Amino acid sequence: MALRVGVVGGGQLARMMIAPAVELGIELSVLAEDEGMSAALAATAVGDYRDADTVLAFAQSVDVITFDHEHVPQTVLGALVDAGVAVHPGPHALRIAQDKLVMRARLQELGMPQPDWAAVEDTAALQEFLDAHGGRAVVKTPRGGYDGKGVRVVADATEADDWFAALAEDANGGALLVEELVDFTRELAQQVARRPSGEVRAYPVVETVQRDGVCAEVIAPAPHAADRLQQVTAQIGVSIAEGLDVTGMLAVELFETTDERVLVNELAMRPHNSGHWSQDGATTGQFEQHLRAVLDLPLGDPQPVAPWAVMVNILGGPAEGGLTERFATALAEHPSAKVHTYGKAPRPGRKVGHVTVSGDDLDDVAYQARAAAAHFLD
Amino acid sequence: MALRVGVVGGGQLARMMIAPAVELGIELSVLAEDEGMSAALAATAVGDYRDADTVLAFAQSVDVITFDHEHVPQTVLGALVDAGVAVHPGPHALRIAQDKLVMRARLQELGMPQPDWAAVEDTAALQEFLDAHGGRAVVKTPRGGYDGKGVRVVADATEADDWFAALAEDANGGALLVEELVDFTRELAQQVARRPSGEVRAYPVVETVQRDGVCAEVIAPAPHAADRLQQVTAQIGVSIAEGLDVTGMLAVELFETTDERVLVNELAMRPHNSGHWSQDGATTGQFEQHLRAVLDLPLGDPQPVAPWAVMVNILGGPAEGGLTERFATALAEHPSAKVHTYGKAPRPGRKVGHVTVSGDDLDDVAYQARAAAAHFLD
Repeated sequence: MALRVGVVGGGQLARMMIAPAVELGIELSVLAEDEGMSAALAATAVGDYRDADTVLAFAQSVDVITFDHEHVPQTVLGALVDAGVAVHPGPHALRIAQDKLVMRARLQELGMPQPDWAAVEDTAALQEFLDAHGGRAVVKTPRGGYDGKGVRVVADATEADDWFAALAEDANGGALLVEELVDFTRELAQQVARRPSGEVRAYPVVETVQRDGVCAEVIAPAPHAADRLQQVTAQIGVSIAEGLDVTGMLAVELFETTDERVLVNELAMRPHNSGHWSQDGATTGQFEQHLRAVLDLPLGDPQPVAPWAVMVNILGGPAEGGLTERFATALAEHPSAKVHTYGKAPRPGRKVGHVTVSGDDLDDVAYQARAAAAHFLD
Repeated sequence: MALRVGVVGGGQLARMMIAPAVELGIELSVLAEDEGMSAALAATAVGDYRDADTVLAFAQSVDVITFDHEHVPQTVLGALVDAGVAVHPGPHALRIAQDKLVMRARLQELGMPQPDWAAVEDTAALQEFLDAHGGRAVVKTPRGGYDGKGVRVVADATEADDWFAALAEDANGGALLVEELVDFTRELAQQVARRPSGEVRAYPVVETVQRDGVCAEVIAPAPHAADRLQQVTAQIGVSIAEGLDVTGMLAVELFETTDERVLVNELAMRPHNSGHWSQDGATTGQFEQHLRAVLDLPLGDPQPVAPWAVMVNILGGPAEGGLTERFATALAEHPSAKVHTYGKAPRPGRKVGHVTVSGDDLDDVAYQARAAAAHFLD
């Protein structure tokens, strides 16, 4: 009898769990939003993850429920727990990932370094924060944002008027999150895996490069990361995973500031784009590690298999022709590249795949990864 | 529109094509012999691979047909080709893998080094061969043998009487293959990948350790393999792939003799147990390479990612409890081990999974792989 993991959500993160599940011999089932999604091969059900009965029925045939995304409502998560279903990460942890205001408050309680922030309920409160922080700040909707959506840099409080108006119409009411605009030199990401029974493993800290608010490229490990920096980021990752009782993979997105501090930017309680390098570049990739963690199996070695790995996203894809038609030139010119595509139709800015390359020479590794990925764009 | 590969046969080799297909974005379909086979996740049809209509119907929805095994009858292969289906490896190549007498004759034409051999139609002819080769020899049924089945060491020609009797009742008639008993120091395997358009890539030669006629362990690359030996074995692999027009993965099993020659023992025209190390230990694993080759995509880099890789088969599995119940101790004690299981019920001697470990120190790598695999046995 195989161990059985059920994934709610049929996107590329669920898809990328299929390979390690098949290799280990774990039965993976997916509750997909629609037919033909990225994880369709493992989809055993199609339905609405916001409907408790749908998710409960799906959960009957698995040993543990985990997630492709963090959007499953707390009411549904609660119904699963009440029915005795093992859910990892649990509702109490996901609640923090689902609301950026809750996240900021909890990180503050844990003493984690983070940008100055405030919950602002109206234009006046936002303007007050702006005035106190040099006239510019980042405003975020607490819920539902991703890949740069729901995030806006403002220089005047009226620039968030539409979001305040939407809040006023929302039955839940609430506030917007405003954060100081951090003067950072680069962005980092720290991943850790944690099992329900407590074991924690930290991946090497990586550098992430964003374009237009979307992750474009990841370098693992982060270049010029002194031992002290690596210890600090790993400790932050472990403290958050333990402090918030996160199970499975946790990604902590960080700013490295001009004065050599690190500040927590965002959290993701699932496999994360910043860890795709590990599929080919670490002894235990993040998708295998996530499966092991949510099943409460011993965690694998997260160490890289080569000195450097670079991951470059394929964003948008070709306007004409499918991704696979581009394989021939990309693979011919870059035999060391590992090409991943997600079975998604290309459209502007959409993450439809990625390329990883590992090796000894960072310049060459980065060149190969960027050049191979470029073959899939126009 | 994704590239589509159809695999005839639902065993573990088809299963192990699933992970690289999902990662690349190739649609893999499997024609399985039964429900619930190793490759069930990708099975789109269940039926008899000896029935041309069944295989032709399956082939309608894919771009190329390839195989989990070499047992598809020539009549069925011919029907596919006649219908315009791309088949890799092709019938002319598979014919050689399907009949050991044909293989010996073709290798002789290619000038490949091999043991002395003969086609013997009766006891007298076998005894004559025995008398000329020191009184002992290896007798093989030309068709249908695998994992030591259909292979017998004899010291007297009457020891093959049952096989001669079976031949006499076979409408096809024919002969047995007899080969000299080679005085070898160890067994090696050379894998090469070849595309229809001609590109060939050779993997490093590996050492294979057999127990009771079944592959137990593989060390990659073969220890103490001098450059000259590696060149010789790679050249043998390339010559056979080109000479026999093999497409996809080819494995050449070799004897290394006490007088430092290599002799061809067996051929396999598919991914092979001797290449499982490459799933985790090479930049491009053999299953990904096979998919690329049969689709006539450019081949990937076959080089190892670490100095050493060791693969140990899980043969038989636990008498009590499933394989997955053994994960916890195996994974806990060997975090660098990559554990693969095939979704097969354990029974004595059956290949139900394997473990690979890669690293810098061969002694440690071999210890970790053997010890991790041992947790799955009784």
